Amino acid sequence: MRRVYSVLVENRYGVLSRISGLFSARGYNIESISFAPMNGNGEGVITMVVSGDEWILEQINKQLNKLIEVIKVVDMTGKNFIDRELILVKVHSNKSIRSEVMQITNIFRAKIVDISPKTLTIEATGSEDKMNALIGLLKPFGIKELVRTGKIAMSREFKGNV
Amino acid sequence: MRRVYSVLVENRYGVLSRISGLFSARGYNIESISFAPMNGNGEGVITMVVSGDEWILEQINKQLNKLIEVIKVVDMTGKNFIDRELILVKVHSNKSIRSEVMQITNIFRAKIVDISPKTLTIEATGSEDKMNALIGLLKPFGIKELVRTGKIAMSREFKGNV
Repeated sequence: MRRVYSVLVENRYGVLSRISGLFSARGYNIESISFAPMNGNGEGVITMVVSGDEWILEQINKQLNKLIEVIKVVDMTGKNFIDRELILVKVHSNKSIRSEVMQITNIFRAKIVDISPKTLTIEATGSEDKMNALIGLLKPFGIKELVRTGKIAMSREFKGNV
Repeated sequence: MRRVYSVLVENRYGVLSRISGLFSARGYNIESISFAPMNGNGEGVITMVVSGDEWILEQINKQLNKLIEVIKVVDMTGKNFIDRELILVKVHSNKSIRSEVMQITNIFRAKIVDISPKTLTIEATGSEDKMNALIGLLKPFGIKELVRTGKIAMSREFKGNV
C-alpha cells in the first residue's frame, strides 16, 4: 500500500533523520521525501510517499505523534488533494532535434531553463504520472541528468458538489 | 557556511535515514531535502541544503563516499548551477481581494491550482529567494497552508564566455 503523508514539524535539529529512521526501522520504504522550512516561524512540512504493510502503518502513526517535534500528521491517502512535483531534466539535443524537444516541452507547459550546443535543460511541474510521461517521452533523446523533488501535497478546499 | 549537495544514490532501503543521520550526528543541520527515484534504474538524487562548520564538512564528505549506496557526491556550492524549488501556498482570499492575489500570482508566473469562496491555492516555482519574496507578498492576506519541496539543483552546461 502506497501512502502520502504530510507531517508538520518543528524544524529542530535532526528531525528529518528521526522521522525517516522511524519508517525505515519498521521496514517501510520511503519512496520520496520533501522538506523545507516555512518562512520565519521555525516550522516546516515533511511530505513523504511511503509503501509497506498496512498494520505497521498504524504503529508508525502512533510513534510519529509521540515525537515532540511533530505537530500534526495528515495521511492524505484517499483525500481530495492537489499533488505536484518538480523535475529538472537535461537531455542531449543538437540543432536538428532541438525543435522536437521544444514541442514536447510546450505540450507539457514546461520551461527550457538552460541551453548549450549539445543539451537542453527543462524544468517541469505536475503530478507524478505527468512527470513520468514527460520523462518517458524525453528518454529516446538521451537523458544526461535528472533530478526530482518528490511529491508535495495540499488538500483541496472547495467541498461543494457540482 | 551553507552548502548545496547533490548525492546520487542507489535507492536502497533506509538510504535516506542513513544519509540524513550522517549529517545530524555531526551537528550539521539539514535545512532542506528533496529525494525521488529516477525512472526505472533504481537510482535517485538526494538534494540537500546543509549548514555548519567547514572542517566537519570534510569528514562528512569522506563518510558519504564510504556508504555503499552512494554513487556520486557533488558539492554544488560556488558552481554555476540552476536551482529551483516548488511551493504550494493556500491564502485567504474572498471576492474583494481575489484580483489583487491574482496580480501577484501573474507577476511571479505562478499558477492558481485551486479555488474556494474563501481561499486560493497557488503553485509556484523558482529560486529560494524568489519563493521567499512571493510568500512575503502573500503573507498580508493570511497564509492558511504552505508546503515547500526544498531546493533541487543542476549544473549549467554551457561553459563558453560571452
